Amino acid sequence: MSATALITGFEAYGGWALNPSAQLAHALDGALIGGLRVVGRTLPVAMTGLAQRIESLLEETRPALVIALGLAPGEAMIRLERFGVNLADFEIADNAGARLSDAAIVPEGAAARAATLPLRAIEKALLADGIPIRLSTSAGAYLCNAILYLLLDALERRHWRVPCGFIHLPYLPEQVAMMFADARAGKIEVNQRADTASMDLALMERALRRAIAVSAEAAAARRPRG
Amino acid sequence: MSATALITGFEAYGGWALNPSAQLAHALDGALIGGLRVVGRTLPVAMTGLAQRIESLLEETRPALVIALGLAPGEAMIRLERFGVNLADFEIADNAGARLSDAAIVPEGAAARAATLPLRAIEKALLADGIPIRLSTSAGAYLCNAILYLLLDALERRHWRVPCGFIHLPYLPEQVAMMFADARAGKIEVNQRADTASMDLALMERALRRAIAVSAEAAAARRPRG
Amino acid sequence: MSATALITGFEAYGGWALNPSAQLAHALDGALIGGLRVVGRTLPVAMTGLAQRIESLLEETRPALVIALGLAPGEAMIRLERFGVNLADFEIADNAGARLSDAAIVPEGAAARAATLPLRAIEKALLADGIPIRLSTSAGAYLCNAILYLLLDALERRHWRVPCGFIHLPYLPEQVAMMFADARAGKIEVNQRADTASMDLALMERALRRAIAVSAEAAAARRPRG
Amino acid sequence: MSATALITGFEAYGGWALNPSAQLAHALDGALIGGLRVVGRTLPVAMTGLAQRIESLLEETRPALVIALGLAPGEAMIRLERFGVNLADFEIADNAGARLSDAAIVPEGAAARAATLPLRAIEKALLADGIPIRLSTSAGAYLCNAILYLLLDALERRHWRVPCGFIHLPYLPEQVAMMFADARAGKIEVNQRADTASMDLALMERALRRAIAVSAEAAAARRPRG
Repeated sequence: MSATALITGFEAYGGWALNPSAQLAHALDGALIGGLRVVGRTLPVAMTGLAQRIESLLEETRPALVIALGLAPGEAMIRLERFGVNLADFEIADNAGARLSDAAIVPEGAAARAATLPLRAIEKALLADGIPIRLSTSAGAYLCNAILYLLLDALERRHWRVPCGFIHLPYLPEQVAMMFADARAGKIEVNQRADTASMDLALMERALRRAIAVSAEAAAARRPRG
Repeated sequence: MSATALITGFEAYGGWALNPSAQLAHALDGALIGGLRVVGRTLPVAMTGLAQRIESLLEETRPALVIALGLAPGEAMIRLERFGVNLADFEIADNAGARLSDAAIVPEGAAARAATLPLRAIEKALLADGIPIRLSTSAGAYLCNAILYLLLDALERRHWRVPCGFIHLPYLPEQVAMMFADARAGKIEVNQRADTASMDLALMERALRRAIAVSAEAAAARRPRG
Repeated sequence: MSATALITGFEAYGGWALNPSAQLAHALDGALIGGLRVVGRTLPVAMTGLAQRIESLLEETRPALVIALGLAPGEAMIRLERFGVNLADFEIADNAGARLSDAAIVPEGAAARAATLPLRAIEKALLADGIPIRLSTSAGAYLCNAILYLLLDALERRHWRVPCGFIHLPYLPEQVAMMFADARAGKIEVNQRADTASMDLALMERALRRAIAVSAEAAAARRPRG
Repeated sequence: MSATALITGFEAYGGWALNPSAQLAHALDGALIGGLRVVGRTLPVAMTGLAQRIESLLEETRPALVIALGLAPGEAMIRLERFGVNLADFEIADNAGARLSDAAIVPEGAAARAATLPLRAIEKALLADGIPIRLSTSAGAYLCNAILYLLLDALERRHWRVPCGFIHLPYLPEQVAMMFADARAGKIEVNQRADTASMDLALMERALRRAIAVSAEAAAARRPRG
């Protein structure tokens, strides 16, 4: 039986009908990549219950690799996060209506936790494949950062030494097209379509497959042989 | 025999090995779109000789539609230009080494000429297809603007009432990846990779095919029936 | 009696309480700069009546120099416009509620008119003074572009050969602060505060005074001696 | 005798002749703000020796408040940092020629430390004064982040509970003007002047004075009464 790669996406939020992270988690669910069987799951964009959902997912899948995905409006590249910080400070409410302000994700928790994916190896592999990718020192303070912090925290508590990280994704082209169509039709204000960068879903999927494959090697290197 | 759609791209310039406009002109050469046979040609990025090349191309192809293409570093969307202005003011030298400064393209020519493509119909069709596109009031003052101005000027002098315009294209993903790889390797300065947006070639091709098809309808409406 | 420099600003619009262009037109009204007496006037942000207001102002002041000012949200530098185009295409309604779409400013008018200020001399003088300035090939398609096109058109019809142009201004710092305070208070959506650049009013005033002085020299050179 | 506010700036780096952070540290040196006597010091942009310089400064000044300042090219607002991370990853070499890559600042140190300034109170006060300010979740991975992390780490080791943080500053207008003059003169490549936002030194100084005053109140509240 193959070891598992847990890939999470988020549901649509912020008025969007789409979220590329959910599409990717769905698209890769069941795939075999780098010897790992992908379990792709989509999570609600809600702070309440997020920690519990993560605990359950980890217990259920006992993954050898964890990559969480999320949308970064305006971002033009695949963006690999280096840190999750212990801060929930939402600029917009989550899908459950919560708008946390300057809150700790884990009370008395560490200020930040560092992603444990092989970041530079992933960057190198994707750039060699012609896929725009960059490392980032901040995942923000919304749900994307929260899931990264919570995953790293949960793995740390369990002493599970599996590579874990977060990848931010650009808009899908359809999302930008929809914004411009809505602005043209007077449905949204023009300055609400400030972010214009996007990336094709197929290219995102190539990027994610490669990131999983590169990480799987690192995961294999850390696992005791059976 | 089908009427012709003349599609021009530009060679690589500015240190790039690639130019999406050349790739698209090549990819569509010979295609039949909207009843028009595409003649796709790639032009040197050189002001000297550009007017003559345009004259020859027009005489040779006697097109029913003309769309010139070019790269807009940093642009994130398909960008449809509304005007060509009578100004050549280059921020970098062209491939022949010329760096024009505040020069008229056509001495005593009109200050600007308006593109004659069905701009709003193209915008509407592409947005409906989920392709990010926007109209722009400036094509800059480099070769992209020059070819648009020269094409419109040449058609005007001939009294050929065929739709003519210019489409600016984002970087290809490979170009952004190459910039970041070069910056990481210390080959270029970090701030030289300021522009991070890109678009998949396949998506650009879908956009261009649709723009040609929509324009072909307009071209047909203007042609006398035979 | 001194010859006149006509400086126009616009009233606040788009939900703003302030417009730096109005503040500057007011601040310089009556000043003597480069031998010219400044007449500073603030105009309504309304397409209807704009042409008539311009005609009246020109007849009343018979200026030796005309510089119109306006706000460019998000712009970070003093921006000197090179062209006004014959296009009114509003992304937001003007203060009279008009939202023109793809309309000609002057029916059958030229596609564009070039500003007649000594652009490079102004740029050079301001950069030497340490003031961020850049030349621009597009004033957009809102009121700022319209007033530039109408002014150049009116002067052309009168055969008045006086330097005339348009300067776009960044937000005032107070405007950006207000946006962020409003977003923090939940009064506006977060993505409505996308534009963060601003410039101190005092620095803008220094820039404008210098631009007038440099232009006044050019104006003097064109006037017949008395 | 007044308690001390330690304010540090950095020397010029990256080819610049100026650094607003050094100018501010110099300008405020000796000032009495909110009951605190400012000691303003400028530090070399060099990783080697930075930790020792910080230790010496703390021992020498025994400050009741510490604010480090630095330049953030392209930033348009006063930017208050929330975290310093344990990462030195330089995109350009420091002034001593070191270009650290993926290095820990403090081996085995915490992944990050949170700034202890009264961030929201400062934000509120500055926005009320009409000064553009925003909170940021990343100070980057260059010297600015390093000094913040090292200061917080040093204070933690000493168990000194004094407010400490870092403020990123925009370019001075003169710096942007110089970039554009150099690009126009062909001395630098055009894309090296990608960052155009700036802020007047006087406005930065108002911002810093206000931030010190607001923080001094917090510092006073934490100090035992004598």
